[in-house]
Amino acid sequence: MSLGIEAAVFDVFGTMTDWRSSVTGELASAGRRAGLDADWPAVADAWRRRYRPALRAVLSGETPYRPLDELHRTMLDEVLAEFGLDAFGEEERRELVRAWHRLRAWPDAPPGLELLHASKVISATLSNGGVGLLTRLAKQAGLRFDCVLSAELVRSYKPDPRVYLTAAELLQVEPRRLLMVACHPDDLAAAARAGLRTAFVPRPLEWGSEATPVPAPPDVDLVADDIVDLARLLT
Amino acid sequence: MSLGIEAAVFDVFGTMTDWRSSVTGELASAGRRAGLDADWPAVADAWRRRYRPALRAVLSGETPYRPLDELHRTMLDEVLAEFGLDAFGEEERRELVRAWHRLRAWPDAPPGLELLHASKVISATLSNGGVGLLTRLAKQAGLRFDCVLSAELVRSYKPDPRVYLTAAELLQVEPRRLLMVACHPDDLAAAARAGLRTAFVPRPLEWGSEATPVPAPPDVDLVADDIVDLARLLT
Repeated sequence: MSLGIEAAVFDVFGTMTDWRSSVTGELASAGRRAGLDADWPAVADAWRRRYRPALRAVLSGETPYRPLDELHRTMLDEVLAEFGLDAFGEEERRELVRAWHRLRAWPDAPPGLELLHASKVISATLSNGGVGLLTRLAKQAGLRFDCVLSAELVRSYKPDPRVYLTAAELLQVEPRRLLMVACHPDDLAAAARAGLRTAFVPRPLEWGSEATPVPAPPDVDLVADDIVDLARLLT
Repeated sequence: MSLGIEAAVFDVFGTMTDWRSSVTGELASAGRRAGLDADWPAVADAWRRRYRPALRAVLSGETPYRPLDELHRTMLDEVLAEFGLDAFGEEERRELVRAWHRLRAWPDAPPGLELLHASKVISATLSNGGVGLLTRLAKQAGLRFDCVLSAELVRSYKPDPRVYLTAAELLQVEPRRLLMVACHPDDLAAAARAGLRTAFVPRPLEWGSEATPVPAPPDVDLVADDIVDLARLLT
């Protein structure tokens, strides 16, 4: 490894955590309590599919910046209406938004971060989730990041280049010494445009076992099997 | 403990780390390499004594905001001149500024933070040191904070109330559920004015064994012997 990486920043939803099974589980539990039934994985997927358009609307200036929890709430209300689940009450909806604070880690993510923590390479989140969300998520999921960084700190969202450049500035590393780690090619492409190095980690199960896996983009600096493999490549 | 504390934020220079012996040691090593001798604890103390006036000048608007590393550098240059140590070169001065990224923890701080990490209470730094400084310091000193927060995030310094209120906002806790932990009464008084709860931890050795210990302020919410004791009080 001759890239001279000093710090690695990680996408969280999908790359480090299995949002789909976590959110599906919380939807199903809330549904049971409310006496409602639905195709819960489909509800989770529909919720998540509204994510990118909602962020794009903020980045284009079409809608004002709002914290991700608020965007999640608006999207949830829309999705519940779409699936005929209007009977979910206010308190259940609030708890469902908090489901994104309690996502489960992929099994390799905690040991991979421990390896990085024990090395000289600094690790941090770099997610569209807010600082509070990421702090709670990391604490309960056993994800030992050295620092919690969020797009919230610039009141914007990835792929805004300011998100990546502010991470480099706050960590006091040159962008070319900073590695963006993600399972999403568009996140990595935006990081590369901002001058960061990039590592792709495949998460073929992100959208469930029947989804088509995303192939590794040809132009990334590194491809790792998982976070443990990445830590070994970096240290 | 009926304060209902959800998160605790920690002062770092003095409260969690022994800046005096760390900085004295680095000054003495750099002096040996440069063939210079001086009363190194006195140099460290003089450097640190310029800290509050420098921050006050920023907070009053007298001088523009600059990151703490830059303030440390200006103060160092002044102190070295004062002690007749102008022979320190550019590279040595840069490394001495980085001494503040490598401070040693007080012995009770790492086990106290581990106890908090294992509890529901969120822990974070809340220091005038920058995010990069705090991340490096925590990593090498074994200080397991759940989150790294800094006055840098609002481009100001404690005791600016925005520093405390932004910590509450980013962590998504009400100020009255957020505990400021420090060995400095003025930091705690400013946190209380912003609506936070306060805990005093004495550090009688902060300025060396001959300095007069700071008594516990009468109006704090908690007084703890050290960080392990604090964690027991909170969990």
